[in-house]
Formats: sequence, structure tokens, C-alpha cells
Amino acid sequence: MSMTVHDTELRDGLVVTDPRAPAPDPEGVVGEAINAIRFLAIDAVEKAGSGHPGTPMGLAPLAYRLYTRYLRHDPADPAWIDRDRFVLSGGHACMLQYAALHLAGYDLTTADLEQFRQWGSRTPGHPERDATPGIEINTGPLGQGFANAVGMAIAERMLAARFNRPGHSIVDHRTWAIAGEGDMMEGISSEAASLAGRLGLGLGKLTVFFDANHISLEGAADVEFKENVADRFDAYGWHVTTVHSVNDLDALDVAVDEAVRDERPSLVIVHSNIGYGSPVQDTAKAHGAPLGEANVAATRQKLGWPYPPFTIPDAVYAHWSSLVDARAGHHAEWDERFGRYQGAEPALAAELTRVMAGRLPDDWERAPLPAFAAGSKEATRKSAGLVLNAYAETVPELVGGSADVAPSTETQLVKYGDVNTGDWAGRNLHFGVREHAMGALCNGMAAHGGFRPYCATFFSFYDYMREDVRLAALMQLPVVFVFTHDSIALGEDGPTHQPVEHLAGMRAMPGLRTIRPADANESMLAWRAAIAHDGPTCLVLSRQGLPVIDPAALSVAAGASVVAPGDDAAIVATGSEVSLALAARELLAGEGIGARVVSMPCWELFRAQSTVERDAVLPPAMPTLAVEAAAPTGWHEFADDVVGLTRFGASAPGPVVYEKLGFTPENVADHVRRLVR
Amino acid sequence: MSMTVHDTELRDGLVVTDPRAPAPDPEGVVGEAINAIRFLAIDAVEKAGSGHPGTPMGLAPLAYRLYTRYLRHDPADPAWIDRDRFVLSGGHACMLQYAALHLAGYDLTTADLEQFRQWGSRTPGHPERDATPGIEINTGPLGQGFANAVGMAIAERMLAARFNRPGHSIVDHRTWAIAGEGDMMEGISSEAASLAGRLGLGLGKLTVFFDANHISLEGAADVEFKENVADRFDAYGWHVTTVHSVNDLDALDVAVDEAVRDERPSLVIVHSNIGYGSPVQDTAKAHGAPLGEANVAATRQKLGWPYPPFTIPDAVYAHWSSLVDARAGHHAEWDERFGRYQGAEPALAAELTRVMAGRLPDDWERAPLPAFAAGSKEATRKSAGLVLNAYAETVPELVGGSADVAPSTETQLVKYGDVNTGDWAGRNLHFGVREHAMGALCNGMAAHGGFRPYCATFFSFYDYMREDVRLAALMQLPVVFVFTHDSIALGEDGPTHQPVEHLAGMRAMPGLRTIRPADANESMLAWRAAIAHDGPTCLVLSRQGLPVIDPAALSVAAGASVVAPGDDAAIVATGSEVSLALAARELLAGEGIGARVVSMPCWELFRAQSTVERDAVLPPAMPTLAVEAAAPTGWHEFADDVVGLTRFGASAPGPVVYEKLGFTPENVADHVRRLVR
Repeated sequence: MSMTVHDTELRDGLVVTDPRAPAPDPEGVVGEAINAIRFLAIDAVEKAGSGHPGTPMGLAPLAYRLYTRYLRHDPADPAWIDRDRFVLSGGHACMLQYAALHLAGYDLTTADLEQFRQWGSRTPGHPERDATPGIEINTGPLGQGFANAVGMAIAERMLAARFNRPGHSIVDHRTWAIAGEGDMMEGISSEAASLAGRLGLGLGKLTVFFDANHISLEGAADVEFKENVADRFDAYGWHVTTVHSVNDLDALDVAVDEAVRDERPSLVIVHSNIGYGSPVQDTAKAHGAPLGEANVAATRQKLGWPYPPFTIPDAVYAHWSSLVDARAGHHAEWDERFGRYQGAEPALAAELTRVMAGRLPDDWERAPLPAFAAGSKEATRKSAGLVLNAYAETVPELVGGSADVAPSTETQLVKYGDVNTGDWAGRNLHFGVREHAMGALCNGMAAHGGFRPYCATFFSFYDYMREDVRLAALMQLPVVFVFTHDSIALGEDGPTHQPVEHLAGMRAMPGLRTIRPADANESMLAWRAAIAHDGPTCLVLSRQGLPVIDPAALSVAAGASVVAPGDDAAIVATGSEVSLALAARELLAGEGIGARVVSMPCWELFRAQSTVERDAVLPPAMPTLAVEAAAPTGWHEFADDVVGLTRFGASAPGPVVYEKLGFTPENVADHVRRLVR
Repeated sequence: MSMTVHDTELRDGLVVTDPRAPAPDPEGVVGEAINAIRFLAIDAVEKAGSGHPGTPMGLAPLAYRLYTRYLRHDPADPAWIDRDRFVLSGGHACMLQYAALHLAGYDLTTADLEQFRQWGSRTPGHPERDATPGIEINTGPLGQGFANAVGMAIAERMLAARFNRPGHSIVDHRTWAIAGEGDMMEGISSEAASLAGRLGLGLGKLTVFFDANHISLEGAADVEFKENVADRFDAYGWHVTTVHSVNDLDALDVAVDEAVRDERPSLVIVHSNIGYGSPVQDTAKAHGAPLGEANVAATRQKLGWPYPPFTIPDAVYAHWSSLVDARAGHHAEWDERFGRYQGAEPALAAELTRVMAGRLPDDWERAPLPAFAAGSKEATRKSAGLVLNAYAETVPELVGGSADVAPSTETQLVKYGDVNTGDWAGRNLHFGVREHAMGALCNGMAAHGGFRPYCATFFSFYDYMREDVRLAALMQLPVVFVFTHDSIALGEDGPTHQPVEHLAGMRAMPGLRTIRPADANESMLAWRAAIAHDGPTCLVLSRQGLPVIDPAALSVAAGASVVAPGDDAAIVATGSEVSLALAARELLAGEGIGARVVSMPCWELFRAQSTVERDAVLPPAMPTLAVEAAAPTGWHEFADDVVGLTRFGASAPGPVVYEKLGFTPENVADHVRRLVR
């Protein structure tokens, strides 16, 4: 492990430097420039009556250095494609970033800061990328930002491999993040750190500052967290260095220089003091509530900040802008470089502009799609895999991988290579058995821009990555989440591996499209809809073979379609249950009951149709039965009765489980008979 | 880091010992006793036509040693309370354990093994505690078993602190687990390992074997996983030792001796060869599919196993039983000790018997419950916290904690101490910001027996621990999951912290009770129902104050109750929306519309009522509106229309968000008007 001279050793009682004793604040205008962050945060939290002042106060020197010295950025153009990315993983400390963005000259006014945590403001309680210029990604759920940053760093390397040419280094930026003790305790950050360490050499442009302030919400963090973080990251293959006090700007610079030079991802452990300068410094009281009038006054006194709330001396603004303006030169220099690149590599330059704008190629629909013959049988995981591989040829930004189940989820892009240490030109990522980090990495890649990532695992393990899907939905990131082995029909692996309640929860999520195709052709339409969509989509696919239905009858875009006619009743189903419904329809036809079968692969798209269109598919007066090998929750919106699951599955061959739990043509027909009688 | 002489160094190319080259198999009957495990696994997977033969083949020597030498257990009494606990975290390798249980003399016959992965068998595709004698906990979702084992080890220490007395060491057993590379990649195991390291000294009775077989489903594990696991666990504060080949039984014994002596939790890294002895040894092909006839024949040849499928020589059975019978003496010796304990400490002995049987104390309902005056206002997180503290006095097995949000979730047991290094007498656990491990630890404690654990976090972060709740539901473990800050009304923290879709997914889960109380009195009934229930319960509680309703009108046991009469329409609501419904009812009363208000804290308990009872609360012909500050998914089962949320929340003061998103008496009344016209 590589260390600076500022190392402290916190384990086994060997405290070389007391982490409670910060270095003194820098003097003069630099000190004021740092205090400006602290007091903007203090004042905003005070005005809002809620928020987290402690970390902004502690980390103000780091934010100052980041925005004035470490980050290559341009406040006038927060969308500059080669800007450095910065992620504040502990999003509750967002006033740290809002204050720095304001002082650095981003379009974020004092009035905006005064609206902290108010309806419709540009300064919400946790960072939101659509609300605030200079925010790269929404953070708040701990650990996510750490993993997002790893995803961004991977995206940068992969984009560089695609677009840089000898003499033309067009994609060449760094990713920075700040993570706290809470971030480090979450398993997702361990997963992401292990994966980043695995990719090792080449991810050297990733620098994570670990804010070691030794305080958590329940008090001293070491009640909960006593591990040696430095050694842990060293074990992952990271470069690790430590700064004994965030107030020591020179030490910060030394550590960052070292991190920048190292070819491994770097963790810079920065000891800080939560609530720095206030009477509640180094206590949990400084964490998540306003300081209160008396403490604010005492802090103003102690830090020598006589100015009224939200008031920053002109000299401080001038100091910030002099430093930031100097850095904006990087952008001008890059523009020049990009101009030369456009001259030498016009097609590549246009392509880079396209992918960074998130526009699909004009001819993306001309993919060499497979044909699936009616009457044949194919698992939708398999057909979807073929379709994915076809679209991969016309949509180069489609990249992805699985949580160690690529062979089972059929998500390998067979014509393309792997992403691997020092080799970033591939399109297949091996995420390992790390579902939670996988989703967050994909979110980070999508937020970075340049890619439409997908990721895959078994549907049951959606439970390990719910927060990822939620954040993709909240941010409307174009990530495709592929979930295979989608029901009890997966069979022998048993109830831990058999999803039951997952569809219901997924469909309840705002901003998310869930598509469960009935056959190979619907799986083709499903991938098409997913790629065309500028938000997240979940594809829910079968393990077992499903009969291929006449493609003319199908629609994913409309959310549902009549796949077999009938006017006495309707059986609405999804996925594998559509062919079950067709079999039940046959039984009923023999008794003179005309049951239509409706495949409804996507509730959200069906709801988006007009009433007329919806009523044509599912006439309101028609007795309607829903059939799905999942919890019935939600189906009463569309149906009068449901054949579903109100218990967990069981370990046995798929057809046995399916039959034992009522998924037989007879049982479905029986439910229809009861409805029409 | 402490190491044995068998260490290999896998990083940086410094391979001291080739992990591919296993030690030779032990000779004679010991070799046959080990091969018996291998071939029972091979034959069972072959007969089932699916399963995972590779790990049982690789780890057979470890399972042999565990069941014949390391574990203190009694096949004749798998429920012996002081038995050692063993958890196979990679549950897909369950034939390893089934074979060992069979050979060790548990009530698991050859016929049972022949039914591997069949409907209703005692040998399902992943371990299930209710299916098989000798299985402690269901595993399969990777990493969970590792965390469960940590929970069991904690339970043992806490139980020992409560029940052992000088001269009477009645609770004194070890916890063993086997975890694979997949388990190690999952974040949940990192969280659990960090927490176990934090508790450090005193958790020395926990030994985890890490099966380093270097193969994952996608091929060589080092494509995905290249970290130094030894150093990582050392950083957590664990004792770590390495065995260069699992075939070297002496080396295993040395490592285990060392682990047993060390006061820290131990990780024994065991290098093994997946599919040992077969032509596909050391390849992913041996992982998750039958070997196939030719490979099975070749393996029989290579390992010298001429016997037909499922046929074990008598000498092998005799060898196993001679060793296991000797170990059962521990049970007899313990019975004697327990007899002396009963004599010296009859009350304690009875109490231990009671808690291990999972029976509540006779007088548990005599808790000093608080009184909540109608007209006052109290957040349900607060009232529930007071109730929890009251029940803590009459239910000593109630122990728990939160993911670093005890002050916010109000779940601290204020009269009782913390569980801490070397101090296991407390009742408050500090789980740290580790939701996923928290739930799994509680599951492990509940499965161990002796406790009714609860754990708490913000409702939005249910997403980090869905799998835990699912496994508790699958196993019907008596764990109470407390989720506070239950809606958009939490306000300023914004959409990442505001649950929307969580209730829908929770209610869709089989075997789970979700209770969202409307006020302080319902929160009292909710805790009562949760404690009385022998399965898992989720309590969903408000951050904000809610008016106290007349307790006479309330019922949690019935799932729903009429809290205000009316015959023109019904407004059914939960939690904070019940008082909103009451306000809307007032508006409607002024217009001559009599709307009854129904509080429905628990769908599952309401569904369990008779039709007559349900119809009395919600008459089928009565126009019914549901109101809940959450996704409307599922409410159509009970209501004709829903005032719910089909978007994410926003950062602003709670009352503002609530109002902006339609949760006003006016809007609710408006929806009722439309229904009754």
C-alpha cells in the first residue's frame, strides 16, 4: 500500500495523528473562499429548517480545491462532453456542491440557494441531475453514487477506446467522487470497488475521496464501522492514500497528484471534522439538522465570518472566478482539438456527437433481425438474445453484461469482445455476482453519456438491484434491465429462484416500462421498444420454450393486442401464460364459449392508449380473466378475476410446478366458465 | 495476517503453490467416505437431470471433515438447542449437504436423495429448513447464507450472555459456514463481514470456509473477481488462514484448530477443484449441469468408484457412523449439564426452553402500554417506538436495531444497553448503514432461535433489503421489519427518500403481513399483531404527526374497520390518509353525502376475514374510493377508484408535497362526488 507522510493509523490503538485535531484553516482570501461554502450551507439549511450542514462544513476545503484546481470543467457549459465528472455520493451533503457550483459561476443564484429544499427549486434536498446545472447524477441512497462513479469512469475509458485516434485524444477526462462512511458501509460500494479493482490498470482516472469524519447518525461511526478501509481497498487493487486533515490544502494536493499519477483507481482518505468550527463539531448533532441560531452565531464568531446570511464578499467571488476562469481554458483548448479531430476524422466526430446527444443512428431499425416461424418453440430469453445481438450491429452504443449469468440470460454479444483490464474496446462487461453494483454502474454509464447500457440477471435477483432500477426510473436513464427465468416455471431451482411478487412491484414503479413478451416475436418488439425509449425498460423473459405466435396479431407499442378473437369473454395474459390462455380458449370453444385472448406485454404502454383503443382490446362489459404466473396484485385494474399466485413456488421440474399451482388450460377455462355464467 | 504454512499467494503472479494441483485424495476407507459424497451428488444430479455437481465434488473432503470431526451435532436430534449451526451459503451446492446428512445418519434416506429436485421431496434444489432435517436455513440467493451465519453467531453470544451462569455453560456452540466466490462478490457478505469484524472479539465461534475454486458461471472467476480476499477480511478484523488443497485433511485440521483458538471470527480459505476427478474438472461446465453419462463413467473410473448409482458400501456407512456416533456424545454430555442447570437455575432453564421453542411469555400482553389521548397528534414512528419499548419489558426475546437510523426510526430500547464487542447482554444492535446484511442477520438470529428480532430503516431503503424480507416470508421467520418515513409526506429529503411503489410490492409478497397504522392506537395494535405472529411482519410508519383516532373504532386483527360511519360511499385508506379521508368526509357531509371512512391497515388480515365480515366493512355495492399516498397498484381489488401516486415525489416541505400531489380533502371529496353521481 502506498501512503503519504500524512498517514494516520487508526487501528489497534496506534493513532499516530489525532484525527480530532484538524490542521488550521488556510488564511486570507483562500480561507474566506472556503468559509463561503460553509456559510452558504449553514444559512441554506437554517432557512429551509432542515438539511445536513455538518458535512459541507467539514469538507468545504475539499470542495474548494475540487472546483478551483482538480476538476476540468466549464461552468458556462455544464454539458461539455469532455468535462470531468464529479459525483457526491453522500447526496444529503448537497449544499456542499450547490455552494461550490454557485461560487464557481454555474447558473445557480443566491436566490436558488435561498430556495433550498423548496417545491420546484433548483436546490432540492438531494442532488437531482434535471434540477441543477453541474449535477451529474441523482444521489441520496447511500453507496449508489460510488458505484455510479465507477460506471462513469468505465464509460470514459470505453468511449476513449472507440473515439480516440493517434494524435487525437478527444475523450480524456477524469471521474471524481466523494463518499462518506455510510457509503462505505453499504455493500454496493464494496461490489463496485471490487469490480473497479478487477479492471485495475486503466481505471486510474477514477479518484474517490473517502470522507472519514468518524460520525454517523447514531453517533460515533466506530460503534458500527471499525474496519481498515485503506487495507480493504488495497486488497481490491486500488491505490490508497491518506490526508490527515482536509484543512491542509497542500497535503490534499500531494495526495491528488499521487492519485492522478497512479494507474489504479485511487481512494484518497480524507480526515475531516463534521460541523467544523461550530460548537457541535465532531458530534452527530451536526449531521442532519440545522445548527440553530445560537450555534450559527457562535460559528460565525469562531470562523470570523461577519457577513449576513447568503452574503459573500466580492473579493471571494473574484477569487473563485479567477481560479475557475483559468480552468475553463481547458474547454477552449479541447474545442480546438475537437476542431482538428472533425477535420481529420469527420465520421468519428459526428458519431461522437450523436452518441453523446443520446440520438439513435438513423438506420438502427435496419438490424438483421431473426425470423421466428410460427409453430416453432423458443424461450424468450433465447429469442431476445438473438434480437439483442441483431440490434447490436446497428446500435453501437448498446453495451452491457450480466451478473455472472451471461450464458443463462443469453445476453452475450457474440460478435464482440469483452471489456477487460487495459482493453476497453469490447462491448461485453463481466459484472460478476454483483447485481446491485451492476445496475448502478449501468446508470453511471448512461448518465455519463455515449452508451445505452443493458444488464441482466435472473428475475428473482431483481431484489438485489431494486434501488438501481428505481433511480434509473427517477432519472429517466435509457438503461435496459433484462430479467430472465421469470416465473415458477423455471422449476427445479425452487422458491428462492422463482419470482412471484416481482412483477407487481415493478409495475407499481413510476417512470418505468415493464415488458413481458409472450413469444419470440413479441420479444423482438420488446427489444425494439426498449431501444427506442429514452427511459428505462425492464424485459421479463422466460427460461422455458414458448410457442411462436402469429406476429401479425402482436403489438408491444400498444401495450396489448388481441391474439385470438372471441366475444363472450376475454383472457388477458402475459409471457408464458399467453399460450396457456390460447389452450384454455380451445377448451372453451368446444363448449361454445368464445373467449378472446389478449396478450398484454406492457401495462404502461396499454394505459397510454386512448380509451377507444383500450376498449377495443378489452371491452369494459366483457367478462375478463387475467392469467399470470405471479402475484395477482394489480390485475383487478383490467380484469374481473385473476388466476395468479398467492404462495411461493416449489422445487420440481417446471411443468410440474406450473401444473400443481393451477396453470393448466382446465383451471383457466374453469375460471372463465364461472365468469360467463 | 496470520497464515498457515499452506498459504498460497495468488496476487501479482506470485503463485507459491499451484492452486490447480490438488493434494492427492486420502486413501482407504476415508477416501471412500469422501467419494461417497461425490457420487451421491453426481448420481442425484444425473437422475434429476439438473443441479450443481461441481462444488459437492470439490468440497467433499470438507463436508466429510465437518460432519465427522468439526461439527458438534446429533443426527438423532437435529433440534438439539446447543448444536453447532452450519450454513451452506452457496445453496446450489446442496447435494454436498444432503449427501453428508444422509451419510451422517440424519433422517434422509437414499430414496430421498433419489427424489432430488422433485415435487414435495426432502431434497429440493436449494436447502429449505422446513423440508430437510439438519438444514438450518434456506439459502440460494448468494451472500445471504454468509450474513445469516453472522446472525446465528451473534444470537449464540447473546443467548449465552443471558443464560449461562458461572459453572453452567449451557449455550456454547459454534457457527460454521461455507461460502463461494459468488457469495464473496455480493455486497451483503461484505456488509456482514465488516459488522462481524466490528464485533470482533467474542465472535470467534464463527468460522467461514471460503471455497476458492476459481470458477464462476461465466468461466474463470478471475475475469470478475481478482481481489485479495485474505487481505480484505484481515482489514475487517477477521482471522484469516489458507488451506492449499481441500484434499489435504491434515491441513484442514490445522487451519480449523487455529480458527477455533482465535478470538476473532475466522475465514478459512480453502482451495478446491470444481468437478474434482471428472474430465470437466476446473471448468465452468462442472458448475451447473449434470456431468452426462460419459463423464460420470470416466469419473467413476478415475476415482475408483465401481458402485452403481446411490449405492454406498457398508464399510463406508460404518465408517461414517462410527465417527458421528462418537460426536453425539456431546449431546449426552450436554443433557447432563442441562440437568444440573435445571436443578440450580430452574427459572432460567424454563425460560431458555421457552424462547428456543418460540413461545411468547404467558404474560406478554401485560406490557405497560402508553395511552394516546384522542385529539392529540403523534407520528406513528414515535407511538410505535413507545409501544415497542413497552413490549420490550414483557417480551425479553425482542431485540433489534436499525441501519444507523435508530434516532429517526425511534427503535432504540431505551431501558436496555447496546450489544458491543465483548458485551452481549444488551438488546440494541447497531447494524450500521448496512440494510441488506441487517435483514439477513435478523433472519439468522430468528432461525437460530431464542429471539424475535426486529430491524428498522427508512421505507425507501426497503429496496436494499427486499431479498431479506422475501426469505423471512418464505421461511415464516418471526422477524419484524420496521419501516418509517413512509411516504412523500416525509418532505424535504425528496424523491430518493420518498417511497411510492414499495407498498404494492410488499403486499404482493406471499406469506408477509404489511401493516400501515393510521394513528398511535393502531400502531399499538400493529406491534401487538406483529409480536403475536409466528411469521414476518412489516410495519410501515409515518414520519409526520397524525391525529389520534378513537381507539374503540380500530382493529388491526380484522385488517380493516369502519372508523366513521356513512352509507352513500366508502373511503378506504391506510396510515396518514385515514385522517385525510376523515377530513374529506366532513366536506361531503356538508353536501349531504354520507361517506364512511374505513381504515385498512393490513390487507392480508382483511382478506382472511369471512365474506360477511368483509362485506360489513366494505359493502360490495357501495361506491368505494381508495386513498393512499402511494402507487395505486392493487387497490382495485377493494375500490372502484383510487387517489394514489403515479409519479415520484419531490423535495419540499411535507405538507406542500402532499398537497401538490393531490392529497387534499377537496381532491378526495371530488373523487367521491364523481363516484356517487
